[in-house]
Parts: sequence; C-alpha cells; structure tokens
Amino acid sequence: MAKSKKYVYSFGGKKADGKAEMKNLLGGKGANLAEMTNIGIPVPAGFTITTEMCTVYYKLNRKYPKELDKQIRNGINSIEKIMGGKFGDAKNPLLVSVRSGARVSMPGMMDTVLNLGLNDITVKGLAEQSGNERFAWDAYRRFVQMYGDVVLGLKPQSKTDIDPFEEIMDEVKKEKGVKLDVDLKTADLKELVKRFKTVIKKRKGIDFPEDPWKQLWGAVEAVFGSWMGDRAIKYRQINKVPHDWGTAVNVQAMVYGNMGDDSGTGVAFTRNPATGERKFYGEYLINAQGEDVVAGIRTPQPINTSTKSEKSQKTLEEVMPAAYKTLEAIYKKLEKHYTDMQDIEFTIQKGRLWMLQTRTGKRTAAAALKIACDMVNEKLIDKKTAIMRIAPSQLDQLLHPMFDPKAKKEVIGKGLPASPGAASGQAVFHADEAEEWAKDGKKVILVRIETSPEDIGGMNAAQGILTARGGMTSHAAVVARGMGKCCVAGCGDILIDYKAKQFESKGVVIKEGEWISLDGSTGQVMKGQVPTINPELSGNFGTIMQWADSFRTLNIRTNADTPKDSQVAKGFGAEGIGLCRTEHMFFEGDRIKAVREMILADDLEGRRKALLKLLPMQKGDFIGIFEVMNGLPVTIRLLDPPLHEFVPHEEASQKEMADDMGVSVEKIKQKVDSLHEFNPMLGHRGCRLGIIYPEITEMQSRAIMEAACELKKKGVKVLPEIMVPLVGDVGEFKHQEEIIRRVASETQKKYGIKVDYKVGTMIEIPRAALTADKIAEAAEFFSFGTNDLTQMTMGLSRDDAGKFLPAYVDLGFYKEDPFQALDQIGVGQLVEMGVKKGRSTRKNLKVGICGEHGGDPSSIVFCHKVGLNYVSCSPYRVPIARLAAAQAAIIEKH
Amino acid sequence: MAKSKKYVYSFGGKKADGKAEMKNLLGGKGANLAEMTNIGIPVPAGFTITTEMCTVYYKLNRKYPKELDKQIRNGINSIEKIMGGKFGDAKNPLLVSVRSGARVSMPGMMDTVLNLGLNDITVKGLAEQSGNERFAWDAYRRFVQMYGDVVLGLKPQSKTDIDPFEEIMDEVKKEKGVKLDVDLKTADLKELVKRFKTVIKKRKGIDFPEDPWKQLWGAVEAVFGSWMGDRAIKYRQINKVPHDWGTAVNVQAMVYGNMGDDSGTGVAFTRNPATGERKFYGEYLINAQGEDVVAGIRTPQPINTSTKSEKSQKTLEEVMPAAYKTLEAIYKKLEKHYTDMQDIEFTIQKGRLWMLQTRTGKRTAAAALKIACDMVNEKLIDKKTAIMRIAPSQLDQLLHPMFDPKAKKEVIGKGLPASPGAASGQAVFHADEAEEWAKDGKKVILVRIETSPEDIGGMNAAQGILTARGGMTSHAAVVARGMGKCCVAGCGDILIDYKAKQFESKGVVIKEGEWISLDGSTGQVMKGQVPTINPELSGNFGTIMQWADSFRTLNIRTNADTPKDSQVAKGFGAEGIGLCRTEHMFFEGDRIKAVREMILADDLEGRRKALLKLLPMQKGDFIGIFEVMNGLPVTIRLLDPPLHEFVPHEEASQKEMADDMGVSVEKIKQKVDSLHEFNPMLGHRGCRLGIIYPEITEMQSRAIMEAACELKKKGVKVLPEIMVPLVGDVGEFKHQEEIIRRVASETQKKYGIKVDYKVGTMIEIPRAALTADKIAEAAEFFSFGTNDLTQMTMGLSRDDAGKFLPAYVDLGFYKEDPFQALDQIGVGQLVEMGVKKGRSTRKNLKVGICGEHGGDPSSIVFCHKVGLNYVSCSPYRVPIARLAAAQAAIIEKH
Repeated sequence: MAKSKKYVYSFGGKKADGKAEMKNLLGGKGANLAEMTNIGIPVPAGFTITTEMCTVYYKLNRKYPKELDKQIRNGINSIEKIMGGKFGDAKNPLLVSVRSGARVSMPGMMDTVLNLGLNDITVKGLAEQSGNERFAWDAYRRFVQMYGDVVLGLKPQSKTDIDPFEEIMDEVKKEKGVKLDVDLKTADLKELVKRFKTVIKKRKGIDFPEDPWKQLWGAVEAVFGSWMGDRAIKYRQINKVPHDWGTAVNVQAMVYGNMGDDSGTGVAFTRNPATGERKFYGEYLINAQGEDVVAGIRTPQPINTSTKSEKSQKTLEEVMPAAYKTLEAIYKKLEKHYTDMQDIEFTIQKGRLWMLQTRTGKRTAAAALKIACDMVNEKLIDKKTAIMRIAPSQLDQLLHPMFDPKAKKEVIGKGLPASPGAASGQAVFHADEAEEWAKDGKKVILVRIETSPEDIGGMNAAQGILTARGGMTSHAAVVARGMGKCCVAGCGDILIDYKAKQFESKGVVIKEGEWISLDGSTGQVMKGQVPTINPELSGNFGTIMQWADSFRTLNIRTNADTPKDSQVAKGFGAEGIGLCRTEHMFFEGDRIKAVREMILADDLEGRRKALLKLLPMQKGDFIGIFEVMNGLPVTIRLLDPPLHEFVPHEEASQKEMADDMGVSVEKIKQKVDSLHEFNPMLGHRGCRLGIIYPEITEMQSRAIMEAACELKKKGVKVLPEIMVPLVGDVGEFKHQEEIIRRVASETQKKYGIKVDYKVGTMIEIPRAALTADKIAEAAEFFSFGTNDLTQMTMGLSRDDAGKFLPAYVDLGFYKEDPFQALDQIGVGQLVEMGVKKGRSTRKNLKVGICGEHGGDPSSIVFCHKVGLNYVSCSPYRVPIARLAAAQAAIIEKH
Repeated sequence: MAKSKKYVYSFGGKKADGKAEMKNLLGGKGANLAEMTNIGIPVPAGFTITTEMCTVYYKLNRKYPKELDKQIRNGINSIEKIMGGKFGDAKNPLLVSVRSGARVSMPGMMDTVLNLGLNDITVKGLAEQSGNERFAWDAYRRFVQMYGDVVLGLKPQSKTDIDPFEEIMDEVKKEKGVKLDVDLKTADLKELVKRFKTVIKKRKGIDFPEDPWKQLWGAVEAVFGSWMGDRAIKYRQINKVPHDWGTAVNVQAMVYGNMGDDSGTGVAFTRNPATGERKFYGEYLINAQGEDVVAGIRTPQPINTSTKSEKSQKTLEEVMPAAYKTLEAIYKKLEKHYTDMQDIEFTIQKGRLWMLQTRTGKRTAAAALKIACDMVNEKLIDKKTAIMRIAPSQLDQLLHPMFDPKAKKEVIGKGLPASPGAASGQAVFHADEAEEWAKDGKKVILVRIETSPEDIGGMNAAQGILTARGGMTSHAAVVARGMGKCCVAGCGDILIDYKAKQFESKGVVIKEGEWISLDGSTGQVMKGQVPTINPELSGNFGTIMQWADSFRTLNIRTNADTPKDSQVAKGFGAEGIGLCRTEHMFFEGDRIKAVREMILADDLEGRRKALLKLLPMQKGDFIGIFEVMNGLPVTIRLLDPPLHEFVPHEEASQKEMADDMGVSVEKIKQKVDSLHEFNPMLGHRGCRLGIIYPEITEMQSRAIMEAACELKKKGVKVLPEIMVPLVGDVGEFKHQEEIIRRVASETQKKYGIKVDYKVGTMIEIPRAALTADKIAEAAEFFSFGTNDLTQMTMGLSRDDAGKFLPAYVDLGFYKEDPFQALDQIGVGQLVEMGVKKGRSTRKNLKVGICGEHGGDPSSIVFCHKVGLNYVSCSPYRVPIARLAAAQAAIIEKH
C-alpha cells in the first residue's frame, strides 16, 4: 500500500519539513515559519496542518482522514522534543498557539487561540514552572475566554451585542472595586475562570473541555470551519479567491514576552517603511504580549536610536543588548534571504529571542522607490525585480501634494477619490464666483451638485472640486484628472443649498467662504484647512522611470488639451498626445459666443460665418500644442459633445445670451429646448455632428492643417493625427475622411507645404469594434475610447451609476469599478476583437487607447497583452503608465 | 483562337438567343422580351447588349471591345430581316427604340429613346410608307427632342430650369396661335425640327447626328453612361446594388399605336391587382403611343367589360375584337408560363398586336392573398410558392382600418409611420383630456410633443397619437403598436403650443377640438375627417396562415401586457407571450399611488408596506393573462423602467401627489430630483432596481406564483417564464434568480401546488451577449431585447436619433432604420454570438427575441437563420411574423 499522505509539516530546532515555496500548501505564515527554521533562525517549534487537509475535510463532509490523528500526535511529540515540556503534563505543560493561515491574508478567518493546553491541572504546572502564579492564572483566564469566544462561538456577531466574558469581567472588577485588568489579584483571576466556565455551560450546554487534545481538535475544527464562514466566503467571492484553496492551521509552542522585565515583544521593519532608508526600524514593549502592542494601552518604545524620536526613550538596544544583537543579525539574514524589506514580529522570553513572523513589509511610494533602487545598487535584486516591486498606482502619492499625515482632521463626509491630491480652500458654490475669488488671490474649493462644461473656468481657478453627484468618470472627475487637480466626486453625504450658499454634511453646515479640505486619494472631505506637504520627486523616481522605459514596448501618450498640460505631460515622459479634445477650447473667453452664434444660426451661411470667427482661435490652440509637442504625434479629436452642452440652461444666462446676440429670449429657449435629448450620451454628438454640419469638420480640419503648415514652415516637426469620434459604421468615417482630406489637400496646396498627417477614428461604440475590419479599410489608426465603450457595452451611464455601481462591486458582480479598471471579461472582448479585426484588413494599423483606463495599471497590462501600440492618459498618470507598461512587458517574458 | 465573346443577344420571329433565366446578363426587360419571343408571342424584333458589356466598357475606360461593332451590325441585320425595312434606308427605313434595363428596376437610369433612325431623308420614307406625313414628322420632332434631352444631355437637371425644346415648342405654338400639340400642322412640325437642331448646335456645339449608326452608338453610350450617373450611383449605394452589375441596352424595332384608328396601345394585368379577382383587367387608348397613356391627357378606355365602369365606355373587345382575342390568348399564355399575375404592355399597329413588356404585376395585400390561393387551387403553383409570393409587411394593410383611397386629403404634415392604421379625431393636447373627451363619446387624437408612461390612459382612449418628437421606437410608437393603435411619431413639421392648446403645421393652425386624421402607414397628418374603410379578413387570409404554419419552425409569440391584448394576439395565432411588461400595470387606476408611496418610502419597511398594496393588484393582472393564455407559455419581465418614470415632473401634479400622500411638496420635489438621471436608458433600471430593492422582485415573483397556483388549482394550465431584465453579468442574474426561486418555493409550498416555471433573462446589454456562456450556466432561457441592444450596440438613443438617423439612411450608412429592421451586420453579430455562447453551456437553452424586430420580416428571417426558438411581436404583427417565419423556413431548404 502507498504511504499515507502527509498532512502535517513540522518545524523547529534547525529544520523544517516545509519551505517558503510551499505557500500554497502551508499558507503564507506556515511557509515562512518553516523557511525561517530552515535558515537557522530561532522559531518556537510547531507544525502546520496543510491547506490540502482543509479541502479533504470538506470533501469528507467535515470529517478527517484517519491518518491525521497520528500525524498531529507526531507533530506535538516533535514540539515536545524540541521545546521541552509535555502537552497536558501536570508539571511541565507544553502550551501552544493555534492560528489560521491561508495562501493570502484573508479577513473573516479565525482569530488566534493562545495558551492552548491549559486546564485546572496544567495551570498549576505553569505557575510553578514560571514561578508566577498570577501569570499562570492570567494566561488561563485569557485562554478560556479566547476559546469560548473563538472556538465555541460566543463572540458576539454584531457590534451591539456584548461579549459574555467582558460582561463577567466588568462584574468582577466592580465587585473588587478595581478599574484595570492588571489590578486583579490571582484569586480574582481564579474566580473569573470559574465564572467563564459557568457561562460556557449555560450558553452552549457543554463543559469547557479540560482535555488538551480535545481543546486542540476543537481549535483545528474552528479554523477549518471559519474557512466556510459567511464573511470569509463573501471576501473570497469579492476577491475572486477560489474556495478550494483552503486554509492551513499553524500549531506552535507558546513563548512569553510577559514573563518579567527580561521579557518583551515587538515588531520591526528591516528598512524604514516610510522613507525607505536602510535603517532597522521598530518598536517593542517590555514585559508584554503581542496583543498589548496592538491594543495600544501602553506606548511602545523604539528598538534602536534610528527609530528613537525622544531622548528619554529607552531602546531595546540599550535595555537588552544581547537580544538586540541577535535580532540585528536575524533581520539582516532575513532581508538577504528574502531579498526584500521584511516586516517581522519577535518575542523575548527571559532574555531569549524568538521569531514569530516574517513577511514582506508594506511601504510608502517614496520608500518603495528608494528600497528598489538601493537593493539594485546593493546587488540584492536586478532591475526587472526592482520594477516589479513597485505598485504603479502608488506613484500617484508622489505626484500630488498630500496632507501632512500628522495633521488633525475633522472628516465631515466621504465621496469617491475621483482625482488624487490634497486641497484646501474656501467653499464657493458657483463657477464664476470661484473665478472671481481666485482673481482676488483667494484659494477656493468649488462645491457643486455636479459640474458641466460651463464650469471649466471655475474648476481651473479652484484648488479642488467637490461634487455631490457623479462617479469616478463624471465630468468633474474626468476634467479634474486631466487638470491634475484634486477632486472628490459623488459625495452623497453633502446636501447643497445653492440659494443659501451652503452645504450640510453629517450635521455640519459649511457656509460660503468657510475653509474645507479635500483628500482626492481617499475621498475624505474635511472641515477647516488641513496642512499639506509637497513631496519632491527623488532621484530614485527618475532612475526607476529610466529602467521602466528600457523594458516597456508600449508607447505612452497623454490626454492634453492645452499647451500647459502638454508641457506637464512631456515633462513626465509622454511620447505624444493620444487625445486632444477640441471642445474644451470652445469654452475659453469669447469663443463660447461664436460657438453659440453657430448653434443659433438658422442656415449654413450663418453657421459658416460663426465658424469663421472660431477658425483663427482654434488654429492658435493647435499652434500652441504642436509647438510643445515638436516631433511627437498629436491626436486631435474633432468636436464630440452634443451641442446642448454649449448653451446656457439657466434663465439668467439665457437672458444674457439673448442680449449678447440681439435675439429674443424665446428664441434662445426654443433652441435650447430643441437641443434637449433624453440620453445625450447616445444622442447627436461625435461625428454625427460633423455629418449633419460638415462645415464644423471643415473648420476644424482647416485649423489643424493651417497650424501644421505654418509651424512646419518655421521648422517645427508636426505630426497631426485627426480623429473622427463616435464612428459606428465605416460609412460615417468615409464621409468625414473625405472632408478632412479635401481640406488638407487644399490647405497644403495653399501653403505649398506637405504635412505628414493621418486620419483615424475612435472605437467607442460596440458596433465599431464589431465591424472594425470594415472601418480599418479606411481608417489609418484606431483609438479605443474605453470610457464610452464601457458605458455602452455594459449599459452604464457613468454619471448615473452611483446609485448601484458601488453595490455591484460589493456584491462581487464586478471586481472593480469598470470605469477605473477595464472590464476585461466584457469590454475587453470588444477591444481584442477590434484590434484583431482591424489588423485583419490593415496590417500596420496603429492602435491606442485614450479612455481613463489608459492610466490604470491592470488595464495597461491588458492593453499590452492584446497588442496595442500605445496608451494615453492624463498628464499626471504618465509615470504610472510607464511603470505599468514596463511590468506588462516583463510579465509577458516570464 | 477562341470565338469572340457574345455581347449581343437577338430576339424576334419565334426565337431568341436569351431567355427569362438570363436576367443577370440581359437585365429584366431584355430577358423577358427574349422569353416572350421564345414562347411564340409577337414581340417586335430587337437585341439586347449585355450587362457584361457595360462592365467591360468601364474596365476599358469607357471604350468598347472591337467585336461589339460587328455584333451590333448583325443585330440590326437580324431585325431588318424579321421586320422588313432597312436601318437608314430612304424608302423603307427601320426605326428602333433604345432602352436601358438592369437586373433590377432602377431610377436614375437613362430614359427611353424612340424613333431612332430618323433623319431628314428617312423621315420621308416613313411618311411614304405610313402614308401619313404628319405622323412621320411628328415622330421625327419627338425623336430629335428625346435625343437632345436624353442622349445629348439637354434635359434640365433641376426643376426650375426649362427644357430648351419645350421653350421652342411654346414659341411655335404661340406663333401659330394653337394650344395643343395635336393642332400643329406638318409644316409646323418641320419648323420645330429645324429649330430643335439649331438649339442643339447652339448649346452643344455639334450638329444633330443625321447618320442612324451614329445615333445608335450615341444612345448606347448614353445608356452605359447613365449607369455611372450621380443619381444611379447614389441609388445603388443606398440599395446596396453592386456597381459591377452593369446595365443592359435594349434595341428594338419600333411599332406604332398612333397610326390611325386601327392602332392603339395599352397596359393590362392578367388578374385584378386590387382584388385579385381572376379577370383580365386593363386600359387602352386608340391611335396613341405609350407615352400618351402615361401623360394622362386622354382618359384611357377599358379593354373589356370586366374592366368597364360606365356603360358608355367602348372596350377594346368591342372596338378591335380580333386584336383583343389575340391579346386574351397571349395573357393566358403568359400567366401560365410565368405562373404569376403579369403586368403587360402592348401596342396594336394597324390591327396587329405586339407585346412590348411583361413583368410580375404589383398588387394589394388582399389581391396577393387571393391570387396566391387561387393559383394553388388552379394547380399553377404549389403552397410553398404561394407563401413566398406574399410580402409579409403587406399584411399590415389588412389588419388595420385604412383611409378610403378615393377620399380627398389635405395633408398638413408628415412624420414617421410609427404604428399603422387610419384614425380621425378631434385634436387634444393632454392625456387626461383625451380620457375625458373619450368618456363623453368623442373621438380624439392625442397630440403631444412626446408621450410618457403617464399618458397611457389618454393614449388608450384616443383613436390615434401624433407626436412632434421621437422615432419609430419612441414611447408613443412602441405603446401604440402594442395597442394596435395608429400613431404618427416625430412629425417635425408641427409646432405644439400647449398653453394655447393648438399646433401649427406648414402654416395651418389646428386648435383643440378641430378634426385631424392620421395615416399610420404613410406618416401623413391630414386636416379634417378623412373617411376610412375597414377591410375584412378573407378566407384566403386564413388559408395562407394555415399553409404558413405548416412550413415554419419558428414559434411566434406576442408582446402583450393585458388580457385584452393577449386575446387579440391569440386570435391572430400567437403561441404564447414573449414579453409581458409589468410596468404598464403600475399606472392603472390607484396603483400609481401605491407605486409612488413605495418610491417615496425612506426605508425597507415603508417600501414593503406599499408593495403589499400592489401585490393583489399585480396578482389580478397575471390571473387575467394566464387565464387567456391557458396552456401557452407566458414570459413576464420584472419591473424595468427607471423609477422616475413613475413620479410626476410637473409642479401641479407634484402638488397633487404631495396632498394625496400627506407630505410636503418639497419632499416630492427632492425625491423627483434625486431620481433624475443624465442618461436614464443606461441608468438605474432593469434588474438594477431589483438588486437595490430586492423587495420589488419579491413582490412581483409572489404575485406571479400566487396567480399561477390559484389558477392551477382551477385546472388552468399555467406556464410562467420569469424574466430578469437588463442583466450584464451572471452575478446579477443569480442574485435575482435566488430571490425568485425562494419566493416560488415558499408560494408553492403554501398552496401545495407545483408550478412548471422557468427563470431566464433578457439579453439587451452588449456585455450580456459577450458573456452569454456564463449567463446561460444559470439562466433557463434568453430573450433578446433588440430595442435596447440596438441602442447600446450602435450608441443610438431611439428617442433622440431623429436628428440624424434619417440622414444616415439617406447617406446609405444604414440600409434601413435599425430600430425597424435588425442591423444584422453589427447588432446581429451579438445576437448570433449570444445564441452560440449561450448554447455552448446550456444545450437546450430556449432563445427568443422580444424587441420590435420580432415583427419585422427581414429580421425574422435572420432570427430563423441563427437558430432562435421563437420571435415575439405586437399582437397585430403576429400574422406577419407567421408568414415571414414560413418564408424563412422555405428559403433555408432551398
């Protein structure tokens, strides 16, 4: 017969059955405990019951295979041998901890049970052995409570319920007239144990198990049981963790940091997690257990001088130099071994150091960059590894001002973190007022129910934007990100009263002129002026970017509508403009008047007249952008939004417009009414405008080509790519292309200049992706407009989805907000289809993406995978995109 | 060397080179002329230059291959031999006509040139030969004019220009003091010829070609040239006719119906095209040419007594009995030969009958049914052929009242023919007024800028609905079709003034209470009360439907929301309900109050309370429908529209609602505001409602299941199919399915009854089609909601597309309005993908379609092809769908 399957992996002494690579079988914690043991680091002996056992347990309908019992007994034997003591022994009892440990860290799983093995007999042995009766009984009463809570399920499920053990604790403290747990005497602790056991009997109908083996099996069962607990299941559904991964159980000999002043416990990082500085960094407590560090009742002390902030503090190095020295040797060994910064936990029992945990340490963006660069210099890792170590989205922290983490904050609401950054300013409620106040040198936050293109001036003038409605890709959010300006959108907490010029949030009223602060990275809205700090870009940032560029194959462009934005993006390494929206230009200064004149015109002649006024202005815009982007391609999208966005909807503004244009208010109202649409997103916009009003396409093409010709004469290298928006059928594209090419050839003839230009289209309507082969017969390039493509493919209006989309993410229908991370399962199919079909009829078709997803790391990896030529994102996300693109290239080669 | 290619096909005498099957090569006209010749029918001899020649002509850059000249000469020789006379001969000249003739009849192509071969010499020969100098010169002046107009291009291109020949004609008539052409003397005609030639010289710089061969080549060139004329190209683009089909040229010996009282010309149908009666039916003119019949200057006479309407009329049978007898023999022969009703043209020259054309005759729906049935009885055709002969869309005529074709009409506007039928009534401008007036026994037409679900009562009470905005699938259109009620939608001509209660259209003002008439089949809006006739369904209708059912494999269901609609549809042969919309039920009577109470509720408890009021009402609805559909499946869609459709948007109604509910108007306004969406089509609707408010799904499921249980107890066979709308991810479906199945099992337990029910979903979001494999793992059936699927796939809001969609059809981007005929190229891909993917994970997945396309013949053929199980359409389209489905099945087997 075959040897029975191994379900229990021991570790201790200097050797372990497992190792770091066995994370899938042993869980993260178990694998690292084994690994530490193997490399000679002192770890309390123990064993890990495998994740496989968990799966078998459920397959056998919550039963264990026969062989497990023996393997566990062997595991305990092995601990006894290494650590001394005997499980259940009256004199020298071995006590263990039991912890769950899955492949990935997972909330909703069983908490730790400490001191397992104690009972009315062994407690005496522990007292004798430790020479401290109170310590022994304190451990015992803690164990009974933990066991009752965690294993027997007495822990309250809702926050309003009371833990029966806490209740008893309060009773006894009251009876004894003491305030703190530590003031309870040994006798009191004994009384507690008694009452705890009584409540268990009363509530669960069973006696507290005195038999340590029963205790152990109970705890193991509780760990496996918690794997299928409601919270754990839900967590896995949301995070797409397969149910059959299972959890491991770690059983480990107890060590005590609370055995007197020669004992202690602590946590440390092998490098500074905030700055990345190569200095050992950590805190400890003397005579304490791990729980005490977490509970925050006592203030931990620095382990060494580089951690120390006040002179008076006593470091571990000073207090227990020998243990510290050992710790120092260990952390160095660990870092070298794992080749990454580690987050470690240790306990010192009567002067002897034990390691309880090591794992990769979390760090700030700045620290991540520094550590990655340093480790390459230290030859610990190679450049590829360095690149893979940094989460691209983390870089965002570095590119925007941030609130001083030490500042006090009064949070009065929370919305969507729509555009990162930190901003403080005086609240104003109208865009024009924002502009006026800003002119007076004031810092303002523009607070609106929602924003519209008319508000752009005010948004630009403001430090930040706060809206009550709209999602991550609402107008406010998109424009703010384009501007690199902080924005909190869709903050349902706030109720805005435009008339009274104030808003209320959670009972706090903020009037016009009062200071508020916005955190665009967390979505927090704070009262008052929270101080900010302006992180500087370190040399490490540049180094990492340079390395990233050497790996990536995807080009990175930017979405920019102004020379200023273009300049910023170029500074961040943009290799061209992937989306220049011409409509924003229509709002500046007096232009809006000409635009409105065009809209109001009754005939072609009237429209042409108004367009003639716009021509030189648009030309000027393009000249500015082309100059900045000298030598780099610039994709210009023709007019896209429905015309109603350009007309005023409020009576007063309509009146003003009427006076301005010398027509009746009725005429304005009539026109505005006639432009009303039920679903403007699917309405008369994009190339549908240029098809019904070819003169608009004509004017824009002329402005682009004249700008290009004039600059080329001056020696600027201009590479315009004219993009027709919202094409659903090749016929639409050809119609617009014909106008563009005609105007281009006329203009080039006029100037006697040849310009290297391209005509292409946005793929943003599902039908465009479905018929991409036909469209590519005419179009020279594609740019996926994944914002609209997502809206149409998923049937989601990004401005309205706030009512259900958060619930959809919570319920796990979508892993992430599909407007932030491309929905690869659905929308991704169309992107892939579009690329394949497009290239089937035009081999060298240039394909990019210019939706918001162009700046999202996971989406960038997808774009690389499906063979896009470039991604385009807002200027401030260019570095993120460069890094993500490098990671995509590295992943692909592995 | 290979024999040179044959480009010229002769016909005449009793034999022809071509035949009917050679339509692609010879064009429709040429093929039928050859066919008639072959079966021994007297056709003036001639020849056809093939369509292939046209293609070669363009390939050779508007040149001919060498061999053509000889072939044409042979063709002319052959005519000379058969007809006598010689081309260009001074004594006995042969004259010919030249006509274009493509595979399909096509406007924009060259008109006919008659009398070709005449010149200053041959005219004399014609005069002598005919013994009628005036006749000869009249033919000559007609020829010069036609040649100048058509071949030399003097025909004015715009309507405002004047034909130079007409101008001369007017001059000469004025000079001669005569009014009619026929009053011109021979000398006058000679003068005309002279002046005509002068104007040609003056305008074109060339002499009129006297050489008949030159004339002939010129005419051939003109026919081929017209194939690439702007109008012809545009027509082909729109109708997707390939440019390389080419046109044929028909050259045929002239025969004359204007050679005296023993001559004549006429057109006839082999059966009555209006009624289908098996009686020869036609008109003729004595001493006239074909043109004269068309010109309408003289009133044609009936050919026989069955055509005669007045006693005084002289029939051809009486006037020329011999010729008539020949004609009678010929029409019988033709009909037997072609096995279909023919539309023929004939000319009698000096007592001798010549056939000039035969083609399949157009007919009314009633005639089509009768002819098809009769011909099967006559054993002329089989049932399959009979089925294929009837255009399904034609049946519409039979199912709705229609205007008396003889009535006088004052058309004051034209909109979209949104729902067929004819309706007259007094104009009213508000839905509630429509209801009130109707209660008083008045017939009303509801005139609205657009309609909303609140207007349903008024729409139901009205005879017809007229809207200024909205497309073929706007609310008004969809609801009207569902009701089988006449509707003209999106009539941009009318300007409605709600305050003044009137509308203006093309200068005509219609006030409230004035009579107007709507033609829902043409989109015409007429002033006054146009009398209607109510066509009766003949036995032929039933016969054809019965035959259709024997061929079709596709099931036909109906979209019906009421027992009444269900009854109508069942009468028309519906085999189940494919879409029962529950939201319409929410508007009836007091229900809307409960619905609003639910919407206004602040918490779950409040919503449950309101829903409890709705439960018995919904249950009642379902009982009514289930009873009617006893034994047939009923697909019920859970609540779909966004909640804002249920709340009032006008101040007065809001006030009323506030009073009703005992809350402040502000609260109502606030709620209404909070429900506002930018793009409601993509907003919080469909299953998104049921997910955020599961209690709604619960109530609806309970109503369905309780209704089913109660009826089943009474012996009614109930087959509910519960449909979850707007699913985009399988997660959403499962969420709703779980609620439905839970409620179903509770209800069945409660009643102790087992109901055979299914849970499925609508596929109407592109992502649903893209992930159909996953969805089908859970869903038992799919129903394609192609209205919304079209909107999202094409990025078109059906309510807003009116501004550009008509232009898109005109420009040929889309062949048809995609809301009427399924866009097979784009949306069709998703339907096909959805079916394939769905069945890949659930083999027996039941798939149907419930969008408007379910009633469109071409879409039904597509649905059959991609393997759908059923189509569902509005009750009045059920017969159309049955026929189209039969045709699809027949096509597939061929």
